[in-house]
Amino acid sequence: MPGSSFWGQKTCLVVTGASQGIGQFFACELSKLLGANSSVIIIARSVSGLEETRKRILEANPAVKVKVHQTDLSKVNLEEYATLFSAVDPDISLSLFIHNAGSLGDCTKLAVDMKDPDEWNSFMALNLYSVTALTSEYMRRLQKSSCKKVFVNITSLAAIEPIKSLGYYCIGKAAREMYFRVLGAESSDLRVLNYSPGPIDTNMVSTLLDKIRDEEVKNAFSSMKETGTLVKVEQSAEKLIRVLEADTYKSGGRVDFYDTN
Amino acid sequence: MPGSSFWGQKTCLVVTGASQGIGQFFACELSKLLGANSSVIIIARSVSGLEETRKRILEANPAVKVKVHQTDLSKVNLEEYATLFSAVDPDISLSLFIHNAGSLGDCTKLAVDMKDPDEWNSFMALNLYSVTALTSEYMRRLQKSSCKKVFVNITSLAAIEPIKSLGYYCIGKAAREMYFRVLGAESSDLRVLNYSPGPIDTNMVSTLLDKIRDEEVKNAFSSMKETGTLVKVEQSAEKLIRVLEADTYKSGGRVDFYDTN
Repeated sequence: MPGSSFWGQKTCLVVTGASQGIGQFFACELSKLLGANSSVIIIARSVSGLEETRKRILEANPAVKVKVHQTDLSKVNLEEYATLFSAVDPDISLSLFIHNAGSLGDCTKLAVDMKDPDEWNSFMALNLYSVTALTSEYMRRLQKSSCKKVFVNITSLAAIEPIKSLGYYCIGKAAREMYFRVLGAESSDLRVLNYSPGPIDTNMVSTLLDKIRDEEVKNAFSSMKETGTLVKVEQSAEKLIRVLEADTYKSGGRVDFYDTN
Repeated sequence: MPGSSFWGQKTCLVVTGASQGIGQFFACELSKLLGANSSVIIIARSVSGLEETRKRILEANPAVKVKVHQTDLSKVNLEEYATLFSAVDPDISLSLFIHNAGSLGDCTKLAVDMKDPDEWNSFMALNLYSVTALTSEYMRRLQKSSCKKVFVNITSLAAIEPIKSLGYYCIGKAAREMYFRVLGAESSDLRVLNYSPGPIDTNMVSTLLDKIRDEEVKNAFSSMKETGTLVKVEQSAEKLIRVLEADTYKSGGRVDFYDTN
């Protein structure tokens, strides 16, 4: 990556939701760019998916070490995360943590039907509470490290615009993005990026098309899928890579795939 | 209220967090404007506070019926809310629900320390889950009523701007405001307003001044308090009353006390 001092360093890369879709692809693409003695920690529920990701990472960059961690992030476990991160080598130049794991929520429900506290808690545990717990335990491990520390939150247009039938998703993304905005505002020693990857053709889009209650939103996604105007994951990964290496975003701010600068 | 067809109707007014502060004051001021045979439901934890509010409401408008409901909104109880609202008379012209209850969260914690899932769940239950549960059960009761249905979410600048040391508060307000934005987008039969009352001198500000970790934010509030530039609750109530009667806000949108139109 000519002209970039960001890539090629001894890095610890962490990617959640890395067993499939965007998380899997981003983990592989970013791994290609890491320097000697780098390590990658991939986290998700699906062991088989994680093993596939490990295989692809090692094909992309045989020099990195890959640690697979299977867990259900809707069951937050602080001790587990502390143990997981105790294996992180603080003697690195760059730490890059990609918070990608997340869920759509029940898109058959309209806002007036969103009332079950247990459903809420489970949804927010996966989409927010585990994100904060992982960040906290990870930072505790790296508090004495002088490495450059970068957090990327994979966010969505849904974090800043209401979308009918996607109440859970919008609320979870809005809450999570605000967490990273506050983290960025408070921590001058961190670089924090909310990255909205654009609408990419993943399992989440299939679920949405299958189940969403609102016809207007369904038709919009359906039309994007049919006309091939959903964003290609390669393009979105490329954009993220360029944004990270340019390193000019405001910490805690948001960058969308469609942003031109 | 000359020129207004909004006030003076047979109304059901519901106010949460009505035992003190903004909630208590708004409940009393709005009650003055209600028409014959109106009823007011006031909800909070403190029985003594609620009884004081009831007394003030009846002094302001002896003609309304006041129902006091004591509950801890951090323990969401759908059956309790269904029973509470079964007493609501659907034969009304106007329903006005003010979601005011909320908490500051632990402002001694920075974002990197926000990791406890139980603390998160308790905070979000009070600030979000109970809000959605109350709305849902209330709407179920009024689903066949042709009355005008208005929801007001008491929000904050913190819903749209990160404030150091106020991570919980910012995230809770962001999530809650997005819930109402989605509700507004989905429900053409409702009028939904996110109203930011401005910084008012309440117990919440005292707690903030006492405990907040970030000196810059503390000094900003401290200075507002000392120079008397905190917003007066009377002014803020007057603004809300005018916004509601003008009825020109975008449903699901936000209006701030400082907005000039």
